Amino acid sequence: MTIHLSIGARIRKSPFFNRTVAAGLTHASVYNHMYMPTAYGDLAAEYDRLINGVSMWDVSVQRQVSLKGVDAYRLARLMTPRNLDGLVIGQGLYVPLCNSRGILLNDPVLQRISDDEIWLSIADNDMGYWAQGLAAGFGMDVEITEPDVAPLAIQGPKSPQVTAAIFGDWVDDLSYFGFKATSVAGIPLILARSGWSKQGGFELYLQDSAKADALWDIVAEAGAPYGIGPGSPNYIERVESGLISVGADTDENSNPLEMGLGRFMDLEQDFDFIGKAALRSIASNGVKRRFCGVVLDGAPLPSTNQHRWRVRQDGNDVGYISAAAYSPRFEKNIAVGVLGVAAIESGHSVDIAAEDGHRTGRITSLPFRKG
Amino acid sequence: MTIHLSIGARIRKSPFFNRTVAAGLTHASVYNHMYMPTAYGDLAAEYDRLINGVSMWDVSVQRQVSLKGVDAYRLARLMTPRNLDGLVIGQGLYVPLCNSRGILLNDPVLQRISDDEIWLSIADNDMGYWAQGLAAGFGMDVEITEPDVAPLAIQGPKSPQVTAAIFGDWVDDLSYFGFKATSVAGIPLILARSGWSKQGGFELYLQDSAKADALWDIVAEAGAPYGIGPGSPNYIERVESGLISVGADTDENSNPLEMGLGRFMDLEQDFDFIGKAALRSIASNGVKRRFCGVVLDGAPLPSTNQHRWRVRQDGNDVGYISAAAYSPRFEKNIAVGVLGVAAIESGHSVDIAAEDGHRTGRITSLPFRKG
Repeated sequence: MTIHLSIGARIRKSPFFNRTVAAGLTHASVYNHMYMPTAYGDLAAEYDRLINGVSMWDVSVQRQVSLKGVDAYRLARLMTPRNLDGLVIGQGLYVPLCNSRGILLNDPVLQRISDDEIWLSIADNDMGYWAQGLAAGFGMDVEITEPDVAPLAIQGPKSPQVTAAIFGDWVDDLSYFGFKATSVAGIPLILARSGWSKQGGFELYLQDSAKADALWDIVAEAGAPYGIGPGSPNYIERVESGLISVGADTDENSNPLEMGLGRFMDLEQDFDFIGKAALRSIASNGVKRRFCGVVLDGAPLPSTNQHRWRVRQDGNDVGYISAAAYSPRFEKNIAVGVLGVAAIESGHSVDIAAEDGHRTGRITSLPFRKG
Repeated sequence: MTIHLSIGARIRKSPFFNRTVAAGLTHASVYNHMYMPTAYGDLAAEYDRLINGVSMWDVSVQRQVSLKGVDAYRLARLMTPRNLDGLVIGQGLYVPLCNSRGILLNDPVLQRISDDEIWLSIADNDMGYWAQGLAAGFGMDVEITEPDVAPLAIQGPKSPQVTAAIFGDWVDDLSYFGFKATSVAGIPLILARSGWSKQGGFELYLQDSAKADALWDIVAEAGAPYGIGPGSPNYIERVESGLISVGADTDENSNPLEMGLGRFMDLEQDFDFIGKAALRSIASNGVKRRFCGVVLDGAPLPSTNQHRWRVRQDGNDVGYISAAAYSPRFEKNIAVGVLGVAAIESGHSVDIAAEDGHRTGRITSLPFRKG
């Protein structure tokens, strides 16, 4: 089945859009009301660049929600169970965002840009409206906007060399999620050690859309000696690494404890963030299901999954698989999903209703490993 | 340029998805985190069915935000400048939703489903989070969910006959946006006289996804004598009729007065809805720009616009066109956009930076008419 993507004004083009088309864009999706590149016609090469070389990704769909004003810090604290004590400019934090019921809404990287401004680099839903609703309801003095910021990612084991070639050796000193305001050729940006892969990399938060072509070309040129090429958040690698995709892996009842994000929360802190009572109750009662891995038997999957696959065990529905792919380097079919704790602990095999028919599988921990 | 739409679990398939594929779906976009059918391979036939016959549309992307609980009505009142005094079950209302700054966030049809439940049939953004934020901030007792509701539209001049053939002649008595809970063949749904066209029609708010195939087939069969076929919210007809598409026509600073929605607001009501002070200020100062039509000179446009087109007049940037198309029945190139009031009132021609080159145009009122 081939469906063409309609292009119109309701969905926004990335400032890098023309460069991605010139680079051979073949497939896209929509994320945060923008077209998101997903493939350039050679999935094997795109995967190989990420795993063994270096890849450049237009990830401007990672929109920034800016909280600015005297109440910005207080609003950010309300929005996350993570303890933001000692939050400093220059060090980002991965923060679950939860509602009053303790449901996981989003999982951005939070960056304190200045004393009174915080950015949330959000997954695919309108957290700006959630923030605006809280600000209006609590009567806060904070301005919530989406600034002109478009991240361009450099990912893969050779990404440090490419990034250092552009900005200098100081980039090696950035900690994970560390960031610094800088510029190149007069193009203002924030450089962060970050990215939605486990292969290492950087994100260049372009702060002037009009200079997108120039920044793309600088990265392409600096990366050429290392074989850089276009890519996108990689479906296979994210499953291998067990990265969470909010909206794909989560449903309307997912909580951060189910999703394995307990280590990013502090339920004992004094601050009364949104959802604290609900999350403490969930923590004390224990979760009923968990984000986990599944290895699927049979021939290599002919394609990735188009929708969630139901999973059964011993005749019972025990949850869903949200992303499945054949892993070239691990040489097996792998998947992530959310399954019942009893099903996980039983050690029994599962039956998966894949699109090309039923397959058996075994539940495993994340990330996946060879063998 | 052809871009394929990536299909995965992050974006949801409509319960009608398989039927739309079987009906020849060729193009889709994404709307409210769901795939939205946009074309079935014969745009001329799809347009003709809507204008002269009858068309069936999968518009399950019109998600319902349900507000339920003792504070549901109060929350709905907070969210809209429209006066909800005397809101009754059975009569929907088109309601602008605004934030504290009076910015237009969304323009749903509001339906009071029961004494303590209200649905908002939303355009493409996450109004559920806005509602949740307000409820949390104001400490309201209201549950905000997205119920299992998937609208299927029957649109076009022959839609009354098709709808009456399914449900009975009582459908003729429904007022515009009037609705009634009913069922057909055991399939529960709410039938409303509604739809995103000016050609007349109904929407069937299916309340059980598992019965989507059956409902689709019932409509297709009842419509066969009238030549029904698949369609989607029609790009050309919406421009002809001057319907607003939030997100396409609006930007982060649009207010309902600019968009011509003043008649759906009551700024003098006693109730202190969100944005009241800002909207009163805008109303008393007057708007700087307005949603309007533009007729473009030259040969028929080779395709609809891919993004907003900038508009200049007498050497100055005066706004943007958000949707443009060649109208077969009016036999001219038409467009809608948001232009400065001074530019509109000058009567001067404008210069439009279309994708296939510059065109001149003249500003006009909406809706468009023949001649």
